[in-house]
Amino acid sequence: MSYTYQYPRGALTVDCVVFGFDGGGLKVLLIKRGIAPFKGEWALPGGFVKVEESLDEAARRELQEETGLERVFLEQLYTFGEPGRDPRERVVSVAYFALVRPEVYQMRAATDADDAQWFDLDELPRLAFDHPEIVEMAHQRLRGKLRYEPIGFELLAEKFSLSQLQYLYEAVLGVPLDKRNFRKKVQSYDLLIPLEEKHRDGPHRPAQLFKFDPDKYQELKGKGFLFEI
Amino acid sequence: MSYTYQYPRGALTVDCVVFGFDGGGLKVLLIKRGIAPFKGEWALPGGFVKVEESLDEAARRELQEETGLERVFLEQLYTFGEPGRDPRERVVSVAYFALVRPEVYQMRAATDADDAQWFDLDELPRLAFDHPEIVEMAHQRLRGKLRYEPIGFELLAEKFSLSQLQYLYEAVLGVPLDKRNFRKKVQSYDLLIPLEEKHRDGPHRPAQLFKFDPDKYQELKGKGFLFEI
Repeated sequence: MSYTYQYPRGALTVDCVVFGFDGGGLKVLLIKRGIAPFKGEWALPGGFVKVEESLDEAARRELQEETGLERVFLEQLYTFGEPGRDPRERVVSVAYFALVRPEVYQMRAATDADDAQWFDLDELPRLAFDHPEIVEMAHQRLRGKLRYEPIGFELLAEKFSLSQLQYLYEAVLGVPLDKRNFRKKVQSYDLLIPLEEKHRDGPHRPAQLFKFDPDKYQELKGKGFLFEI
Repeated sequence: MSYTYQYPRGALTVDCVVFGFDGGGLKVLLIKRGIAPFKGEWALPGGFVKVEESLDEAARRELQEETGLERVFLEQLYTFGEPGRDPRERVVSVAYFALVRPEVYQMRAATDADDAQWFDLDELPRLAFDHPEIVEMAHQRLRGKLRYEPIGFELLAEKFSLSQLQYLYEAVLGVPLDKRNFRKKVQSYDLLIPLEEKHRDGPHRPAQLFKFDPDKYQELKGKGFLFEI
């Protein structure tokens, strides 16, 4: 007896929205498509899921193949499945997202991608398929996440100043934050360990450096803590 | 020129985790499978996505066909795609969830389901496929949601007492809440409109009834408000 489902079936893909923060604004990693449809246009890294691999594996593999990025923590975002979203046929895409520090990754376009580049989120080129919608939802999720998880800490260099932390929050939230309130809030959570070292950058007086306390974070997280800024 | 992807492809399904709250504990809507695999076992309502329908449409259709439930607001939860999660072949399932008041729905099992019933979340029968994992993730999402959106209000009858509201929060969160603190918090959000009417239930003194203020809720939501209990 065969259980196999006999009806016509669509194809399944993964797409990855990788945000980068390098101290300036928020960036998105795009590839230039080397194959039709939308050949020569910019798109999210991604591709077809192999029948023997998990969705997470497919996302990691496609990201690595098309951009060279490895060991990125990809989180599942949403599955996009409107009929007609792909001109070829019915294609359902499971989207993933991540936030990384671009400087720690070596980029290298390959397989179905002719190029891979970081773009400012505010100045994205025209994107293939429904990828503008996927980027928008990923950005929304990232903003939401920042409201109840201190994800920012994991993205900064090991040592950072409060100004650097504030830049990250402003980049993700897309709004300027009041310096005094931000510092008060952030320090009230007791997640920052002050270091002996100072950061000297330009003519300003040296800034106190901090590191993130991951044990304290785990403890707060277990209590369902909300990191409200 | 044909774009069609030529590799072997899996099948795509939807599954629905519908939680019910009737004033007691949290319940989950299950169907008894009328077809193999797992024939005769309990499972989430769901089934194969047709090639011409959207994922949301497929979820609504399957829920309606298998349980009779219509006009339920289903929200996409997560996509489950481990190879081997279905004994037939590679099947990727897009899971949805919802929270409803069971008493407003007429249930009626049909198509691939032999029966449809509410079960206490704490006393679920053995479930087919990876459905225990899907239920667990849906419950986790629901608890998370309750922390930053006052979803509870939309689930209660139009008029409710503060005790009824507290029962709902306790059922979803799975922990007892301190009555005094709960009332203080809830009332501080200014989302409740007190009614003239009182609720009389047993030997206790009549309880004040409230209704929910949806305009105020929209206003707070726009401000990125966190409904912390």
